[in-house]
Amino acid sequence: MSRGSANMAMKSKGYRALREEAYNANMALNTAGLVVGTFGNASAVDRDAGVVAIKPSGVSYDSLRPENMVVVDLEGNVVEGTLRPSSDTKTHVRLYRAFEEIGGIAHTHSFFATAWAQAQKPIPCLGTTHADYFHGPVPVTAVISDAQIKLDYELETAEQVIDAFRKQKVDYRGMPAALVAAHGPFTWGNSGEEAAFHAEMLELVAEMAWISLSMAPTLRGIRKSLMNKHYLRKHGRDAYYGQGRSKLP
Amino acid sequence: MSRGSANMAMKSKGYRALREEAYNANMALNTAGLVVGTFGNASAVDRDAGVVAIKPSGVSYDSLRPENMVVVDLEGNVVEGTLRPSSDTKTHVRLYRAFEEIGGIAHTHSFFATAWAQAQKPIPCLGTTHADYFHGPVPVTAVISDAQIKLDYELETAEQVIDAFRKQKVDYRGMPAALVAAHGPFTWGNSGEEAAFHAEMLELVAEMAWISLSMAPTLRGIRKSLMNKHYLRKHGRDAYYGQGRSKLP
Amino acid sequence: MSRGSANMAMKSKGYRALREEAYNANMALNTAGLVVGTFGNASAVDRDAGVVAIKPSGVSYDSLRPENMVVVDLEGNVVEGTLRPSSDTKTHVRLYRAFEEIGGIAHTHSFFATAWAQAQKPIPCLGTTHADYFHGPVPVTAVISDAQIKLDYELETAEQVIDAFRKQKVDYRGMPAALVAAHGPFTWGNSGEEAAFHAEMLELVAEMAWISLSMAPTLRGIRKSLMNKHYLRKHGRDAYYGQGRSKLP
Amino acid sequence: MSRGSANMAMKSKGYRALREEAYNANMALNTAGLVVGTFGNASAVDRDAGVVAIKPSGVSYDSLRPENMVVVDLEGNVVEGTLRPSSDTKTHVRLYRAFEEIGGIAHTHSFFATAWAQAQKPIPCLGTTHADYFHGPVPVTAVISDAQIKLDYELETAEQVIDAFRKQKVDYRGMPAALVAAHGPFTWGNSGEEAAFHAEMLELVAEMAWISLSMAPTLRGIRKSLMNKHYLRKHGRDAYYGQGRSKLP
Repeated sequence: MSRGSANMAMKSKGYRALREEAYNANMALNTAGLVVGTFGNASAVDRDAGVVAIKPSGVSYDSLRPENMVVVDLEGNVVEGTLRPSSDTKTHVRLYRAFEEIGGIAHTHSFFATAWAQAQKPIPCLGTTHADYFHGPVPVTAVISDAQIKLDYELETAEQVIDAFRKQKVDYRGMPAALVAAHGPFTWGNSGEEAAFHAEMLELVAEMAWISLSMAPTLRGIRKSLMNKHYLRKHGRDAYYGQGRSKLP
Repeated sequence: MSRGSANMAMKSKGYRALREEAYNANMALNTAGLVVGTFGNASAVDRDAGVVAIKPSGVSYDSLRPENMVVVDLEGNVVEGTLRPSSDTKTHVRLYRAFEEIGGIAHTHSFFATAWAQAQKPIPCLGTTHADYFHGPVPVTAVISDAQIKLDYELETAEQVIDAFRKQKVDYRGMPAALVAAHGPFTWGNSGEEAAFHAEMLELVAEMAWISLSMAPTLRGIRKSLMNKHYLRKHGRDAYYGQGRSKLP
Repeated sequence: MSRGSANMAMKSKGYRALREEAYNANMALNTAGLVVGTFGNASAVDRDAGVVAIKPSGVSYDSLRPENMVVVDLEGNVVEGTLRPSSDTKTHVRLYRAFEEIGGIAHTHSFFATAWAQAQKPIPCLGTTHADYFHGPVPVTAVISDAQIKLDYELETAEQVIDAFRKQKVDYRGMPAALVAAHGPFTWGNSGEEAAFHAEMLELVAEMAWISLSMAPTLRGIRKSLMNKHYLRKHGRDAYYGQGRSKLP
Repeated sequence: MSRGSANMAMKSKGYRALREEAYNANMALNTAGLVVGTFGNASAVDRDAGVVAIKPSGVSYDSLRPENMVVVDLEGNVVEGTLRPSSDTKTHVRLYRAFEEIGGIAHTHSFFATAWAQAQKPIPCLGTTHADYFHGPVPVTAVISDAQIKLDYELETAEQVIDAFRKQKVDYRGMPAALVAAHGPFTWGNSGEEAAFHAEMLELVAEMAWISLSMAPTLRGIRKSLMNKHYLRKHGRDAYYGQGRSKLP
C-alpha cells in the first residue's frame, strides 16, 4: 500500500503531496455533509517518511488550506506546521502504528454512524450495499473506562478500537471502520481520500440499517455467502467491479 | 414502445442517440440524489438493433460522458466502447429479454427503497402517490440462494425478479419496479429516462410508506378501486392526466 | 379578502396578475421542496371576475411560466389558456365555492403531511409552531367511497374536505389545511402565495409531530389556552406579531 | 465576557457593531437551516451600554439587513429602530438579566430540538458530541400555566427557563440551551454568533439522541467522568481543543 518513498527533496519542501492528500480527505468529509462546525478530521500517512499530515485543531472547513495541515511523526510530535494538530492526533497515529497497511484515517460525528456508536451497537450487515465495503458487521468498542480517561484519553481511544478488533477477531483490511462507543466512527483506507470515502459509505449503510430494522425489528444479517460474494466483487484478486485499477476511480 | 428503428448509418455512428439516452438516465439518478459514490446504473435498449447502452463499471458520475456509455448486445457482450460495462450488465440484459416492452432500466441503492429491500418486505400501496405510478404493492424477491450465487450472480439476480413477478402474478407493465431482497431496487420504463423517473418516484413512496407505517403500524393497503382510479388517471387509454402526450413532459 | 376588482381591461389582457400569483404560488411549492416530478399544484382566485388561475396538468416545474397558467371559471371550465388545467381543478373550484373567503389553494404530496394522510390520522397540535398557523389538530377526511369515485373523483375529493370540516365543526378560516385520507394535503390562504406558505408550515409541523410522538407515544395535544394564545398572537384583531400589516411580509 | 465598552460616539452611530453581530447571528440560523419562514430570532447584548440588538418581528431572512435590527434596553423598550422588535423580545431581555455572563441569545423552531420540546423531555447526554458543548442533559421547562399566559406570555417564557435551571440546579454557563416545553429551544453564548452556533450543535445532538434512542430505547446518559472529560477538553482553564483562542475560530 505504500505510495512512493519520500526523498529528502520532498521532505524539505514540506510534505506537499501528503498535506494535499490530507487536505482533500478533510474537504471530502465536508462536501459529503459528514461534518458540522469544526467536528471531524482526516489524515494521511507517508510510511517511508514516517509522518502523518492531519487537520489542525478547531479550524473551520471554510478556512482550511493544504498548507494548514500539520505534519506529525508516528508518536504525534509536530514535525512541521505552525498550528496545533487535531485533538484526536494521538488516536490517528496509534491506529497507523497498529494497522500497518492503511494509508489514511477519517473521523466524523456523522449523524447515523454516531447514533449507532451512541447506541453502543454494531451495525449489522443487512444488504449488499454494506457488504460492498464492509466485510461483516461494523464493530463497536467498549465504552472507555475511567482509568483510560485518566491515562491518556486520545491514545486510549485508539486502544479501544485495536482491542475490539482483536477480541472480535476482525481483520482491519476487510473492515475499514469502527464505532467508538458513546463517541463516533473512525474509518480508514489506502489513502486519506479512500478513508473519507469509507466514512461516506459508512454513513449510508448506518442510515439504511436503522430504517430496515425499524421496518423489521427481528432482522438478522445476511448470509456469509452473499456477503462474501459482494465484498469480493469489489476487493481482492478476483474483483471484477470497476475498470481494473486497484483504487476506486 | 419502440423508438424508431436503427438503420445502418446510425449503427456505424456508434449508437449516439442510445448512448445519449442512457447517459441522461444515469445523470438523472445522480441529480435526483438517488446514488452515492459510484453506486447505481441505468441503461436504454434499442430493440430493433438488439443493443443496450449502459453505464461503465465503477466510474463516478462526475466523470461520466455520453461517449463513455458501453454498448452491449442482449447477451451482455460488448459491441462498442473501451470501458468495462456495469457489473450489473447481465441483470439488465436478462430483464430486457424477459420484459419485452420496456425501453430502459435503472438500478440504485437509494435509501428508503433499499431499506425495504433489506427488510425483505414489499412496499404496500398506502396512498394515491403510490398508485399514480405503481399498480399495487412493489414486489420483493426471495433472497438469492447459494446455488444461484455460484451459478451466475448477476444473471440470477434478474431471474429472482422474473420469478417473483411470475409467482406473485404481477404484470411488469403496471409495476415498473422490483425490490431485490437484501440488495436494492430495479425500475424500468418506456425509456432510460422514464426508468430513472420511476426510481425517483419509488424512493418517494418508499419513504412515505415507512413513515405512515411508523405512525399506524396496522395500516393495510388502500382499496383496489381507489388504486385503479389513480393508476388509470395517468396510464392506459382513458388517462386524463397531463397534456395528452404518451410520455410525461 | 378581495384583491381589487378585475375590470374589462384586465380581463382582456388575460388575467395577467392572477396568473402571476398562481405561478408564484406553484414555484414557491417547488422552492420549498414540497413537490417532486410533476406532483402538486397551486391556484389563485379572482372573486370579482369569478375565475381561477391554476397550474396546467403534468407540466414540470422547470418549464412552468406565468403564461402557462390556465384560467378557469368556478365550475372548472377553461376561460383562457391552451393547456389542459391540473387534473385536480374540480377539487380547487369546489373548495373556492365552499370556502368563500379564501384567495388561494395549494396541493402537494409533501413527505410528512402525505404520510399523515396515508396513516389516516389528524395531526395533533403538539406545540406552538403548530398553533402559530393551525388553530387545532389538522383534520383528516374519510377515505373516499367507491360511489364517490364513480360519481366524480376530483369533485368528491373536495366534498370529502367540506364534509370533514362540517362534521368535525372546524372553521376553515382558522384551519388553512386538510388531509385527504390516503391521498395528501390541501392548504389555502388569503392568496396563492399564502396557500403555498401554509403548505410549507404544514410540512414542518407534520414532521415535528411525527418525531415528537415517536419520542413520547402517549403525548396529547397542548391545552386550548396555550393554543389560542399563539394563534391569536399572529391572527385576528389583537395580533401583535409582525409589522402590523395584514399579510405576512 | 464583556466585549469592550460602548462610548458615546458609538452610541450616537446607532450601535453599529452590535446590530452587525445580531444580524450575523440571525443569518447564521438561516444558513444552518434552523429556521423556516419568519420563525426564529437572535440577539446580542452590549452589557456596558445596557442595550440589546434583536431581529425585527415577522421579517423574512431574505430581506433582513444589519440596519433593520432593533435596539432595545434591558426592559425591552425600543431605543433605536423603526421596526417592531421580535415578539419574543421580553424573553430575551429577561434571560439577559438573569444570566449575567451571556452575550447573545438565539431562538429557533428547528426540527429535532423542537420535537424534544414538544415531547416535553430533556435531551439525554448520550455521547461526546453532546458533551462537547452541553455539560449534561439539556433541560426542559414545565409547560406554561394559564396564569402565566394571562400575566405576560413572553416574560413568563423566560421565567420558565430560569425556574427550570434553578430547580434542576443547572449552571447556565455550562449548559447554553433550554427547551421550553411545547414550544422550542433557546440557546445562548458569549456572543450572538456563538448562541447561533449552539443552536446548530443542539439540533445535531437532538437528532442523534432521537435516533440512538429509537435503536436502543433503554439507553441512559453517559458516565459523568466521560462527559466531564469531553466538556473540559473544549472549555475552562485546561481546555486543549482549538488554537488557544478563547472563542471558536
